[in-house]
Amino acid sequence: MDEFASQYHRALGIGEAAFEGLEPHLERRNYDGCEYRHLPDARRGIERGTVLIDGEVVRGFPKVPRTLVLSTGVPTQFDEYGRIAVEEKLNGYNVRVARIDGDALAFSRSGMVCPFTTRMLDRLVDLAELFDSYPMAMVCGEMIGPENPYTAHDYPGVDSIAFRAFDWRDRETGDPLPVQERRARYERFEIPQTPLFEFVAVDDAPETVDACIRDLDAQHREGVVMKSPDGRTQLKYTTSASTKSDLAYAFSLPFDYGRPFMFRRLIREGFQTVEWDESDEAARQRAHELGEAILLSMRETITTIDAGGTVGERHTVRASTETIDVLLTHLRGQGLEIDIEDDRREDGDRVLTFRKRTPATNDTTRNYLEGHAVTE
Amino acid sequence: MDEFASQYHRALGIGEAAFEGLEPHLERRNYDGCEYRHLPDARRGIERGTVLIDGEVVRGFPKVPRTLVLSTGVPTQFDEYGRIAVEEKLNGYNVRVARIDGDALAFSRSGMVCPFTTRMLDRLVDLAELFDSYPMAMVCGEMIGPENPYTAHDYPGVDSIAFRAFDWRDRETGDPLPVQERRARYERFEIPQTPLFEFVAVDDAPETVDACIRDLDAQHREGVVMKSPDGRTQLKYTTSASTKSDLAYAFSLPFDYGRPFMFRRLIREGFQTVEWDESDEAARQRAHELGEAILLSMRETITTIDAGGTVGERHTVRASTETIDVLLTHLRGQGLEIDIEDDRREDGDRVLTFRKRTPATNDTTRNYLEGHAVTE
Repeated sequence: MDEFASQYHRALGIGEAAFEGLEPHLERRNYDGCEYRHLPDARRGIERGTVLIDGEVVRGFPKVPRTLVLSTGVPTQFDEYGRIAVEEKLNGYNVRVARIDGDALAFSRSGMVCPFTTRMLDRLVDLAELFDSYPMAMVCGEMIGPENPYTAHDYPGVDSIAFRAFDWRDRETGDPLPVQERRARYERFEIPQTPLFEFVAVDDAPETVDACIRDLDAQHREGVVMKSPDGRTQLKYTTSASTKSDLAYAFSLPFDYGRPFMFRRLIREGFQTVEWDESDEAARQRAHELGEAILLSMRETITTIDAGGTVGERHTVRASTETIDVLLTHLRGQGLEIDIEDDRREDGDRVLTFRKRTPATNDTTRNYLEGHAVTE
Repeated sequence: MDEFASQYHRALGIGEAAFEGLEPHLERRNYDGCEYRHLPDARRGIERGTVLIDGEVVRGFPKVPRTLVLSTGVPTQFDEYGRIAVEEKLNGYNVRVARIDGDALAFSRSGMVCPFTTRMLDRLVDLAELFDSYPMAMVCGEMIGPENPYTAHDYPGVDSIAFRAFDWRDRETGDPLPVQERRARYERFEIPQTPLFEFVAVDDAPETVDACIRDLDAQHREGVVMKSPDGRTQLKYTTSASTKSDLAYAFSLPFDYGRPFMFRRLIREGFQTVEWDESDEAARQRAHELGEAILLSMRETITTIDAGGTVGERHTVRASTETIDVLLTHLRGQGLEIDIEDDRREDGDRVLTFRKRTPATNDTTRNYLEGHAVTE
């Protein structure tokens, strides 16, 4: 079926039969005339987002486990290590960049080529020298900033959109570089990186990470990723500010977000208030903020729809006309309905504000407002 | 397979082939030596909880649709009617009683014979005359009060457990009596009933039900069921007090309750704050109470487990020794693990406090507290 079939199963390190079992789960797509396949969900030990393209393999980025309790989760996860690196977890969208047949392509978490990110990276960072030196590199990082078609979040010093590298892996094996080597290499190639807070003894880590999290929380930043020095073991932990902000967003589009998404975030707050040994008063304050995140965002959405309006996910992007055109084609190609709200030129760029429609929230909310009964 | 097969499909009003399609979904159980089958989930147009027993059919109690918005939901649901009855929705557990082969048996919502309820009803109400006069009656009602093995809730004047009739249907066809006839009959047989607030014109109902709900809310009662005078069309609406109390309970056992259970209740609060046109301050107050219901109950559970304790669903029941024995056998027969916390005699009765174990919450919470990572 595929001229590269035998290459793929060897590159993935699995047998021919296992590869055949994987094939029905692969999705076929096309980027710029090049057909490729990707794995939208983890299957048979192969990471979600793994891509087979042009005879080459680009490994999915591994799931980063999360702890709900630092004091026990850190020693448990890093029991084989003496110390760990603590780096900031930035709130944007995950991207992997690999050079395929001479072109640096940006892949989304699920393994689609993102034509917008591919073009933006070309403008934001110069990866040519890096890929010349390390053609098998998989540059892993976060696209952050307010002018962002997927996950917009403000960061000081980022006016539009920026790239921050947080990992470097072999694109075929998925093996990571040790943290220090990775940071030194990115520095050498002048690629901006996610902040490194410190290397710390595992025994001291819960306390120092806790202090770090409280500081990030006050700045409304997302959290940290802890890594073993060899880069192989990871663990994440996030701030209450990030959890509440996610909840407010999810409850502003309550019928478009999954129940598990909401539930997981509520649970995190429960464990944090207990680990922080909060007083009744502090816990009550946290509860009030949590309640506001849930109810007030829902209220705003229902009120908007009740007044005849619609809700959706609003984003602004700034890029060349061509980049914006391919972004819109890409989003619409995924079945999203996009409404253009504003489209102007600024300093040679096109600045577009658009809204992804969220039909479930609009339709379901309107139905309930019109008196449709719920049978539950 | 079953000597009564042809009776059943005729009694259910479906063809032989349809009945054969239904059979794999029926669960087989035994009560007191009598084998019966019941339908734990609605299938092929047959209500959940329908029972086939001894050649007889006992129809499931129909799902009562809910509105999230009174002003539109009431006219939509009752557009064929001029007026409706507004009765209180009591917070307990639903039971149907039918006389089968001379014995009045109490069936749970899902169609199991509940040996505890069957015996308690015998003590609480005298249904003999009713079934003598109307052998095809299905007496539908709520078991309420604090000494209750399923859903305990305090009601003034109910010290232990009590029965309140809220519907009367033909047990084979499921057809209900008109509201007034039903209430008159129950009065005649001296069976206690759920309170009737009023008959009201459909046009006036949203306003009067709203006033009624605010009053019930202040008393921490559950809500109302509205019915067309012929008893055929139903609609329920509940108080914020009830929603918050459910949420507090669910989040005290967060891994044992379903995410949809929680989500539905959060949504109700959003629609009520909008329909009530609450000020920012009132909405914020509602949000705070909602947040407390969620977070503080979770916090208590996590703290308890962190201190080495366990959580579960605690209930107290008061009955004869034999009734309590069959209840324990019944609950354990459903796979529940029951711990006896207190067992004493009072005025010839046995008063038992027991706890249903909730293994998911205990195990999952302990795992997270011990530092097990979440992969989500």
